[in-house]
Order: sequence, then C-alpha cells, then structure tokens
Amino acid sequence: MEIGFIGLGHMGKAIAANLIRAGHSVRVWNRSPEAMSELVAKGARAAAKPTEVVSADLLMTMLAHDQAVRDVMFDRGVLAAAQPGLIHLNLATVSVAFAAELATAHQERGVSYIAAPVFGRPEVAAEGKLNIVVAGDAAAIAKAQPALAAIGQKTWPVGERPERANAVKVAGNFMLASAIEAMGEAVALTRAHGVAAAQFLDILTNTLFAAPAYKGYGAMIAAEKYQPAGFPMPLALKDIRLALSAAEAHNVPMPFASVLRDNLLEAIATGGGDQDWSGLAQLAARRAGL
Amino acid sequence: MEIGFIGLGHMGKAIAANLIRAGHSVRVWNRSPEAMSELVAKGARAAAKPTEVVSADLLMTMLAHDQAVRDVMFDRGVLAAAQPGLIHLNLATVSVAFAAELATAHQERGVSYIAAPVFGRPEVAAEGKLNIVVAGDAAAIAKAQPALAAIGQKTWPVGERPERANAVKVAGNFMLASAIEAMGEAVALTRAHGVAAAQFLDILTNTLFAAPAYKGYGAMIAAEKYQPAGFPMPLALKDIRLALSAAEAHNVPMPFASVLRDNLLEAIATGGGDQDWSGLAQLAARRAGL
Amino acid sequence: MEIGFIGLGHMGKAIAANLIRAGHSVRVWNRSPEAMSELVAKGARAAAKPTEVVSADLLMTMLAHDQAVRDVMFDRGVLAAAQPGLIHLNLATVSVAFAAELATAHQERGVSYIAAPVFGRPEVAAEGKLNIVVAGDAAAIAKAQPALAAIGQKTWPVGERPERANAVKVAGNFMLASAIEAMGEAVALTRAHGVAAAQFLDILTNTLFAAPAYKGYGAMIAAEKYQPAGFPMPLALKDIRLALSAAEAHNVPMPFASVLRDNLLEAIATGGGDQDWSGLAQLAARRAGL
Amino acid sequence: MEIGFIGLGHMGKAIAANLIRAGHSVRVWNRSPEAMSELVAKGARAAAKPTEVVSADLLMTMLAHDQAVRDVMFDRGVLAAAQPGLIHLNLATVSVAFAAELATAHQERGVSYIAAPVFGRPEVAAEGKLNIVVAGDAAAIAKAQPALAAIGQKTWPVGERPERANAVKVAGNFMLASAIEAMGEAVALTRAHGVAAAQFLDILTNTLFAAPAYKGYGAMIAAEKYQPAGFPMPLALKDIRLALSAAEAHNVPMPFASVLRDNLLEAIATGGGDQDWSGLAQLAARRAGL
Repeated sequence: MEIGFIGLGHMGKAIAANLIRAGHSVRVWNRSPEAMSELVAKGARAAAKPTEVVSADLLMTMLAHDQAVRDVMFDRGVLAAAQPGLIHLNLATVSVAFAAELATAHQERGVSYIAAPVFGRPEVAAEGKLNIVVAGDAAAIAKAQPALAAIGQKTWPVGERPERANAVKVAGNFMLASAIEAMGEAVALTRAHGVAAAQFLDILTNTLFAAPAYKGYGAMIAAEKYQPAGFPMPLALKDIRLALSAAEAHNVPMPFASVLRDNLLEAIATGGGDQDWSGLAQLAARRAGL
Repeated sequence: MEIGFIGLGHMGKAIAANLIRAGHSVRVWNRSPEAMSELVAKGARAAAKPTEVVSADLLMTMLAHDQAVRDVMFDRGVLAAAQPGLIHLNLATVSVAFAAELATAHQERGVSYIAAPVFGRPEVAAEGKLNIVVAGDAAAIAKAQPALAAIGQKTWPVGERPERANAVKVAGNFMLASAIEAMGEAVALTRAHGVAAAQFLDILTNTLFAAPAYKGYGAMIAAEKYQPAGFPMPLALKDIRLALSAAEAHNVPMPFASVLRDNLLEAIATGGGDQDWSGLAQLAARRAGL
Repeated sequence: MEIGFIGLGHMGKAIAANLIRAGHSVRVWNRSPEAMSELVAKGARAAAKPTEVVSADLLMTMLAHDQAVRDVMFDRGVLAAAQPGLIHLNLATVSVAFAAELATAHQERGVSYIAAPVFGRPEVAAEGKLNIVVAGDAAAIAKAQPALAAIGQKTWPVGERPERANAVKVAGNFMLASAIEAMGEAVALTRAHGVAAAQFLDILTNTLFAAPAYKGYGAMIAAEKYQPAGFPMPLALKDIRLALSAAEAHNVPMPFASVLRDNLLEAIATGGGDQDWSGLAQLAARRAGL
Repeated sequence: MEIGFIGLGHMGKAIAANLIRAGHSVRVWNRSPEAMSELVAKGARAAAKPTEVVSADLLMTMLAHDQAVRDVMFDRGVLAAAQPGLIHLNLATVSVAFAAELATAHQERGVSYIAAPVFGRPEVAAEGKLNIVVAGDAAAIAKAQPALAAIGQKTWPVGERPERANAVKVAGNFMLASAIEAMGEAVALTRAHGVAAAQFLDILTNTLFAAPAYKGYGAMIAAEKYQPAGFPMPLALKDIRLALSAAEAHNVPMPFASVLRDNLLEAIATGGGDQDWSGLAQLAARRAGL
C-alpha cells in the first residue's frame, strides 16, 4: 500500500520499519529530521512537510499526546490537505474526548478515522508483535489490514466508535500500573519479613502470575533497576490521567487509579521523573523505610 | 509415610485424598465426622480424638484460621500429645504473629514446625497441583518431601523462619485481590464506554495478562457469576487483614491493601458476603451506576 | 461607585443587592432575564447586552465555571469592550490555569484583574458576611474596597498573582469536603455501635469542632436532610477537580482529595446528583449497610 | 469522695491533682514511683500495691492501652480485690472489643464499670476542662458525678453499653486526624502556588474552621513545629487502628481512616515516630517535594 507515516519516536520508527520490510511504500515525516534519515536508509521517502504524506491510501500517525496530534492534524493542516476517501489510522493513546472530536472532524472531511492504539513496548514493536485495538468503520479497517498485519501479531476490533479503542487502551495501561503497584507493595511487605524481592517474585511470576506483564516488570523490580525508562513516570501519569478522565466522563469511580495517580505524582515530585513506572515499587519500599 | 491429618474442609479433603492415593498411611480427624467418612471410604483410618493422629511421622493440618489452629493444637492438646521428633506441616494461612508463636511452642516441645501455606483452589488441590511455600528446618522439610510431592506441583522454600512463608502467602493473596479489583475497575470504565466485559477481558487476558489468575477470575467477571464462591468474601477479608497486620508489624504502608479492605467490608455489608471475592468487580460496576 | 455586574445566580443576586443597598450605582446583566427584573426592582439598571456594563469603575462577575467566564469575557466580547483602567473583580471559583490565562488577557487590554473568590453560602452572601480572598494589583484592590466592604465581612489579600486566590479557595473547599466526609465516616462508625448521629455530632460540634463548617453540615447530617442542595454534588465535584488539577500542576499528591473525588462520582452515579454535598455522609452509611 | 487512682502519666497526673484540689480523698498507684511522689506532695496518699486503692467509693484508671488495663485489672488482681458496689471509671481510650470484655468481667464481680474516655490534651486536663464521654449504669454515673465535675467541663452520656463511649472517642480522634491531614494537604497545595502556610491557615482557621482543633494544630503546622509531641505518631496510629477495628466489627468501611493509617505508618517508618501527629502535614509537603 501507499502509506504516509507521521511521528518517528521509538515506537513510530520501529513500526514504520516493519511497514517497509513488508513491502509497503512508505513516506515519512517527523518534526526532527534525524529520525527521517534513519527510515530513508531503510527505504522510506522523506516528506518536506507533513501535508505531503496524505497523498496515500493510508495515513498512519504515532504521536505522543493529544496536543501533538492536534498540532499535526489541525494546526499544520494535514487533515485539511487530505482527500476524501483517505483512511487515517491513529496508533497513539489519546484521550477519549479527543478521540470523539477527531472522529467528527474526519467525518466532515470524508476521511475514515480509525483509532488503533497498541499494546507493546518498542522492542515488541520492532518484532512486529504488537497487539492492536481498533475501532472505526469496518470497511476501512478491512482495507488497512495489510498494514496492521505488518506491524502486529493480532488486531482486536471493538466496534465503530473510535473512543472505545482508546478506553480499552487506557484501561489496559491502568491494569499494568496496578500490577506494578501490587508487586511493589507485596515486595515491601515480604522484604520487611526477610524474603528477598527476587525470591518472592520468582514464586509468584512462575505460578499465579505467569504473564508477560508480571515477568517483565517483576524482573525490573527484583533488580531494582528502573532505568533506562522504557515507559517513564510522566507518560504513566498521563495515561492514568486519561483513564481517570475517561472514567469521570461517565461517573465511574476508580479508587485504584486514584492511588496510582497520587503515587506517580509523588514519585515525580521526589526525583523519580526519569524512572520507568516500575519505580513505583521503589516508592513503596521507601515509604516503609526499606 | 505415616501421616496424621487434621482439618477436612474442601481443601483438606482433596489434599488428604492425594496422600492416600500416593500410598501413604493416613489417619484423619475432623470436627464434624461426615468428612472423615468420605476419607475412610478412600482408605484412611479415622481417629476418635485429634490427639490420636500424632503417633505418626508427619502431622499435617489444614484449618481455617488462627483460632481453629489454636483450638486444635493447644486447647485440644494435640501439641502436648506429640512426641519429640514429630514434624508438623501447617498448610493453612495463619497470621505471621501466630506463625512465630507456633514456632516457639513447637520448639519447646521438640516438634519441628513447618509453615507450608499453599496457592491453589480446591480443584487445583484435587489435581495435586498446588504450589507450596515452605519455611522451617531444612532437614524436616526434606523428610516431609514425599508428602509434599504427593499434593503439590512444586515446593518453594523461603528459609527457616516459618512466618516468612506466611508473609509470602498473604502477599500473594493480596496480589490476587489487587488483580481482581483492577479488572473490576477497568471493566467498569470500558463498559461505561460501550465495550462488553467479555470483549475487554478477552483482549487483556490473552495478551499482557495471559496468566492463570487473570484468566480464571476474568471469566467469572465476564460472566458476572460470583457464586458458588470458590473463595468467599469473608475469607478474602481475613487474608487482606492478615496482609495488613503483617505489614503493620514492620510499618509497611499498603495503600492498595487498604482500598481492598474497605471494598471487601462494603461488599459484605451490602449483601455480598456469600459471593466469591471476584464479586469486587460487581461492586466497582455498582458504584458507577452500571 | 459605578459597578457593572454579570451573573445573577443565587450568589450573584445576593451580592448585587448588597451593592445597591450600600449606595452603589449598579448595572446588571444575566443570561436569563428574570433575575435582572428582581434586581431592577431593587434599584439596579438592566443592560441589554453584557458589553454595556463595562462603562463603569468596576466590573464584577459571578459566573458558575471557567466556561461561563470564557463565554462572557471572550466570546461575547466583554473584555474587548472594556476601557483601559477598568477593574475586573472575578468572584467565581475558577481553575488556577484559567486564572493565569485571564490575568494575561486582561493585562494586554490594560484592565486590572482581581481574583476575588468568596467563602460563604447564599444566605451568608445575603447578610453581606462573605469572606473574600483577593489577589491582584494592590492599588486596584484598594480602589475596589468600597464594593468589597459592601458584600463581605473581611477581605483576605494573598498577593499579586490572581491564581493564588483561586488556590486558596479550592483548598478551602477541599477542607470543607474533607470535614463532611470525616463526619460521615465517624457517624457511620458510631451509629453501627448504637449511638445516634445527632448525639455524636452534638458532642463533637460543641467541643473540638465548634466551628461554623461543622455545625452547619453536622446539622444536615444529623437530620439526614440533603435537600434542598445548598451546594450540589456536581459543583462539589467540580471544585475537588479544580483542587486536584491545581495540585497536579505542581506535582502535589492529595490522597484525601482523591477519595473525595471517587466518592462524589459514586454519589452522582447512584442517584445523588441533586443532593447537597453533605450527602457524602449518606454514602458512607450506605456502604456500611446502615 | 474516697477515690483510688491508677495511672499517673501526663494525663493521669493532671486529673488526679484536680480531684485533690476539689477536696476528694485520693489514693494513687503508679508503676513508676516518681509520679506518685509528685501527687503525694499535693495531698494524695500513695499505695504500695495497686490492689490497695480499691477500698474506696470510686476507682479511676488512666492507662495507656488495652494491655496496660489488662495488666492492672486482671494480672495484678485489682478487679479480684474489688468489693461489690465499687464503681470503676475507666478514663482511657480502649478498644471497643476490650470495653465489652471489661464490662462483662466487672458485672460478674458486682462492680459498676463506666467507660469515660476524655477529649483534651494534658494542658486541658490541668485546667479541669476535659470533655468526658460516659457510658454505663446511669445510677453509677450519677454517683461518680462529683469526681467527673472536678476534672471536666462537661460530661456527655451516651447510654448504658460502655463500648459506645469508646466508639465515640475513637471516632472523635479519627475526626481530629482527618482535620490534620486535610490541613496538611491543603497547605501543600497552596504552598506550591506561593501562599505561605501561615497565611492560608490564618484565613481558614479564623473563618470556616474557627474551632479549637483547627486553631491548635494549624498553629503547629504553620510553624512546622512538631515537637515536643503532645500526641505522638504511635499513639495516633493506635487510635486509628482502634477506629478501624471498631468499624470492622460492624463492616463499616472508612476510606479516610485507611489513608490515615497508611500515612501514619509511613511517617513512623521514615523517622517521624517521635513527632506529634500534626507532623502528617510534613509528610504531605515532603511527598510534593516541598
């Protein structure tokens, strides 16, 4: 397919490279040009302006937050430059409110908007093993399937309204943060009784919690190694905030999410802003004087 | 081995049956005699009094809480009747404070005390697939190994001090309760946005959270089926209380455990006392008016 | 003074009436005209458009939330119509972010912006007994003093940056909500032990907590009378949300505020949206099955 | 009256002195004899053994916790030495479970048991201005009135069942802790926006929160002076634990109390064990990096 791609951070670079590898024709744009050069070396074409990439079958964007999407799509004129019939696949985690706003704006322009947030860290993206939650027009999703297949191990459709995919994504990240916090508190408790973190987590993550999320973060907690930050505290706070505001829109109380928000704020306020979010376990230990 | 076994609830019956199946000579006692008859039918001998079962190589007990253990071991004279050299394997989840008290009392009597709390529901026990966390004298644990092998898939030693095994157990149960609560809140959030619980949990429990704990409880939450109660709310509250008091003994704050305690109290106070603890998800939904 | 006044809700009406009573010349505007008629009957002049009221020494606004202020000041052109030298006294509780934005916009226009949020319910406003927290240019505050004196018992200056006054106001409302929640939980505890709410609150609000906030809300809790809603749940949620976002701007964790947010969401989701925020006590009792 | 008095800590000394000053005949006993000497200098007689003080009209005890009361009344034989008809006024804050146990034990002995926990710090006790919550037999309370009048400004009866008075007391202390925490969080929020703690608290504690509790603790928070500890963190933790267990006995969730418990544990674990409980405000500030 002809694919335009905007947003070449850690995730975007890995995803775009997989599209090229799968034989798609990819035109890229990124705010800082260095990342573009890397992709050009792998076979992409570079665009001089973001509006250039829309002459394609499919536009894919992987941007950091609502504001970055707003900047590219609205302020820099990408949506206005798009032709009716284009499909826009937004891979980023945006707020459910903004997802709804984007859906309306695209509809007015005759562009299909597919929310397609992904589960997986950069190394998972590099292997083409992302799990992709998609919501939007079924026919458009079907057309985008070759691109989705190139970057993920599975596509999980959740209906037509794009914000549903975003709700699933932020709820999933909330569950990850909860798993980290629960491990952190449990490790503080057992360490206080003389059991090493590695020993405790070895038992739990090989039995009841033998899942990727627990094994990966459990290893970081056991090693007390919170850097480099695969998913830094401020991004984690952003996602918990998105979960809380998506919940608030429908009056859903989330006491665990509230605890996580407070803990992430404290971690950031007390010097942990460049740690991975698994550093929540360090906070749990510090609170116990460990 | 010659094994005395006290406590034939759902878990105890399944465990004792596996001991018989493995060829051990088992003498049982239980407060209500019906359960003894079942085991006798499978090859056990019934004791008229609990003190009779101690003339064995190994005493195993599976009782519901501290008070029941205290009643049998102290008030009914089982420990006083024991000969020096006996090994007592306590399979139940008791408080860390009581675990330490038991250890001392056994030592004074010359009986080896092994804390051996297990992870696994009755059906797992029936399959002989429990995970057993053990703490106590290493030589005694080695002697008990034939019995442990008959009832569990793996034994996880965590040192000599018995209360360590109990700390691991209550911390593990705390992690289970946290996983349930996190699923419950996440499902409330996504349901409010129109995503069915089954759909959301299908995604999460087959990707990041593809672990036994999430799959099992996730299925109950998706089906909104909280009865029969594999692990009823009041027992869950007991275990969270044990986690909190074990933590308090070393000044370990556990904000997630505090939320769980409040939620379990509310669930019980508002009619959910005979539900499985996965009913915490129902509470999360009800709070959101769902 | 010549005073323009926009926003004639329960609070605004009472405040404007006191300005008239003190001899000021007051021109009013309100979105729905009925409220204007009431004030005209007391001696005010009605404006046909909000922009008309700015030809005055002082503009006072009492609007419900950020969006209402934005609508009047920006969308309806009130700020654009203002002459340099005008003083704008904003009595409403707005977000600290918006307070800063307003300050800048007014400065560019040469208009003095004074944040002047008030503590006090409508009946307190009617008695001219409000406590007014002010922040802004000291000279402008001095000029506005005759108006402030007419509506409040005391003016509390907190510096030049307007958002400080808003931070104080939302922090104060957070403390009120905390007092309500604490009474609610304490009453649930003592009722469960057989002590009537009125008896318990009689002791506490006449001894350690002999303060207006406790006496007022305590009386509502003792009577279980949460309607009419002097300060309805949704407004309370708005204010707690403002406190949380003001805190988040500086990475300040507020665990009590998080609990309050969850509880207010639940109260609203389960049918309490038209109750006074003291209805939090009803939620505390319901959770205990009382 | 003839009064026996056991327990001469800060509170007990001040109370016993007021009894002497009011003309009562007081015989004292205390574990460490120094405190007895002080009281003898003021007119008391010293007992050689605690059992000596029971030959009186009234026995008053002011001991630190359940264990201390158990030690004196049961282990040291004070209750066994008492004559039927004696009235025992227990001024301490004990658990509701122990209050019920004490009531039964006294009844079997023919001794009237009155729970009479007090609100007020040592300086308030010294002025004879305590507020005393009493529960027990009405006739016995009437007989004890001369003593109660000598030590408190008011007696608040809450019925016959002694544990009710204890429930009121621990609920009141929970409200105090909540007020401190709320001030601490509010001060962290406003300090982060540039408002000094003293300035913020000056406004709030002279308007909505013009109550003794807020003024007293507010002054300590404004001065950041948490020592000497009028009420040290570990005692505060004990009282919150008593509130939580009294609540748990009737399935009453108390989310604020849970937050307080976690915060007190953290304060103690991180070096604040010898601070006054108003040091919770320091923890709130530290969490925000202030």
